[in-house]
Amino acid sequence: MTEGARLPAAARAIVRGDRIALARTITAVENGDSSADRVVRSLYARSGRAPVVGLAGPLGVGKSSLVSALVGRLRALGKTVGVIGVDPSSPFTGGSVLGDRIRLERRPDDDGVFFRSMASRGAAGGVAAATREVSRLLDAAGFDIVLVETVGSGQVDVAIRDIASTSIVVVVPHLGDEVQTLKAGLFEIADIFCVNKVDLPGAEVAKRDLAELVALGGGPSGWAPPVVGTSTVVPTGIDELWEAVVAHEGFLDSSGERTRGERARLSSEIVGLASDRIGRDLTRRLEAEPSLRRLLDDVVSRRIDPRTAADRLVHGSRRAR
Amino acid sequence: MTEGARLPAAARAIVRGDRIALARTITAVENGDSSADRVVRSLYARSGRAPVVGLAGPLGVGKSSLVSALVGRLRALGKTVGVIGVDPSSPFTGGSVLGDRIRLERRPDDDGVFFRSMASRGAAGGVAAATREVSRLLDAAGFDIVLVETVGSGQVDVAIRDIASTSIVVVVPHLGDEVQTLKAGLFEIADIFCVNKVDLPGAEVAKRDLAELVALGGGPSGWAPPVVGTSTVVPTGIDELWEAVVAHEGFLDSSGERTRGERARLSSEIVGLASDRIGRDLTRRLEAEPSLRRLLDDVVSRRIDPRTAADRLVHGSRRAR
Repeated sequence: MTEGARLPAAARAIVRGDRIALARTITAVENGDSSADRVVRSLYARSGRAPVVGLAGPLGVGKSSLVSALVGRLRALGKTVGVIGVDPSSPFTGGSVLGDRIRLERRPDDDGVFFRSMASRGAAGGVAAATREVSRLLDAAGFDIVLVETVGSGQVDVAIRDIASTSIVVVVPHLGDEVQTLKAGLFEIADIFCVNKVDLPGAEVAKRDLAELVALGGGPSGWAPPVVGTSTVVPTGIDELWEAVVAHEGFLDSSGERTRGERARLSSEIVGLASDRIGRDLTRRLEAEPSLRRLLDDVVSRRIDPRTAADRLVHGSRRAR
Repeated sequence: MTEGARLPAAARAIVRGDRIALARTITAVENGDSSADRVVRSLYARSGRAPVVGLAGPLGVGKSSLVSALVGRLRALGKTVGVIGVDPSSPFTGGSVLGDRIRLERRPDDDGVFFRSMASRGAAGGVAAATREVSRLLDAAGFDIVLVETVGSGQVDVAIRDIASTSIVVVVPHLGDEVQTLKAGLFEIADIFCVNKVDLPGAEVAKRDLAELVALGGGPSGWAPPVVGTSTVVPTGIDELWEAVVAHEGFLDSSGERTRGERARLSSEIVGLASDRIGRDLTRRLEAEPSLRRLLDDVVSRRIDPRTAADRLVHGSRRAR
């Protein structure tokens, strides 16, 4: 039980508003460092309050500028904001892409905003899991709203659905390849469509096309994603975009979708964590235990096929336990 | 043991060269249909012969035309070729992107070529696993070479390393955003770099830049990825590209890297298959078993955090087995 446990010192510091403690714990989560473990566990009970708003969409549609504009709007409304930029860095070197690209206004003098970029090392599941935990840390640290921006890399974009309570899919008027991207999974994750750069030609057509696609969709949840036009060059539609988020968050509560969604997300999170641990354990044993080494040898020499080897691993793990 | 088992009828048909049986089995693998299970298991022993050559790189660099040119070259050399196009379709609707885009010359009268596109439903792991099995089916069906083309979606591109014996990373002279893509994991998977569209300005600079990056890299395996310039408009460099593949395949054999790589890939494949099965089982039990339903309830109500719930699931699964 988390509730009764006394908070570790770092967790108390985070709750108190210590940004250095927060940044350190986030780094530890990002690196899969076990030093964050107690902090993450103990702060879970204090999360679940802040809406988590995800922005997904292809590279170059202006998500970072939009996040900046949203932050400005939220600060004007007196809300504090934690921002996570999810960064498709190299799974091998850990080199950062977003490092070169971040255009967020960092507002160093404003304690009501916290920016952090996270590298998407390895599998999409890994960064989704870490981002989920970091968004909870920001929530527990007291930020009213958490914004999560992805950097336009397919699977990570789609994973935003497993993290955010409201997902905004951002496109630009001149679709074309973006239609491909939408087909590649983004369409289904949108709670709100945002046509950014509405100052460009073709904006009305793009909005109408999207609205028609939405009308065709008609998901089972009873929420029809609105299509909002925005611009950060000539500031346009930012209020409307935020109103759409508020409306969707209200819908989640009134419809019962929040609990249903949360339960499904938590189930998949718990199973993901458990499967990862079991998988790491199996990988280790496949080299360490003589009988499992022989099993792998037999697959390499093609005496046993991988599916059969996996069957034995699953059964063997049942017996061994 | 696979070796002694009598082949199921569909497997015998595939080995005999029956393309309809092959296509049916591939569809079943793609859909995760259990009807393919015995066929896939039984044909594993007949795979491991054909080089599997992967082509990865951003959208629009001309991978499909390059595949087409390679197929032409290989047919001229008297080699038969199986081609798999991995398609970042929607994980939700299964809608195909590549369906609209495929520009491969299909050569309907040539029995020595077989084209197939595969949808990347859901997680990158899913499509990688299915593509790996399909490449083995093509191998068992007798094709001399298997080509795998990805359609430029980050994680799937990187997953090519888990499938191909030789990975070609394709870029175009005007880098820019492609540098980002390279940093996002493609650089490390390249056994060969291909600068396609060398008829465009900047080709020599791009080749030199890549060669410098390669010189800086110097991986531990002892293979320095060559940089080959190609064009399919004014056919250029296709022979050289194929020669680079042959050289890399030779290096794999002479250095012992083939066995090392194969062993690592098979280990991760077997663990992936086993973890998936265990994960599916856990997901089911989390709703079906009263004690696990209560565990999930406690996480939803924030009395227990997800990491602690995952711990109990791992231990519980040990006890239950």
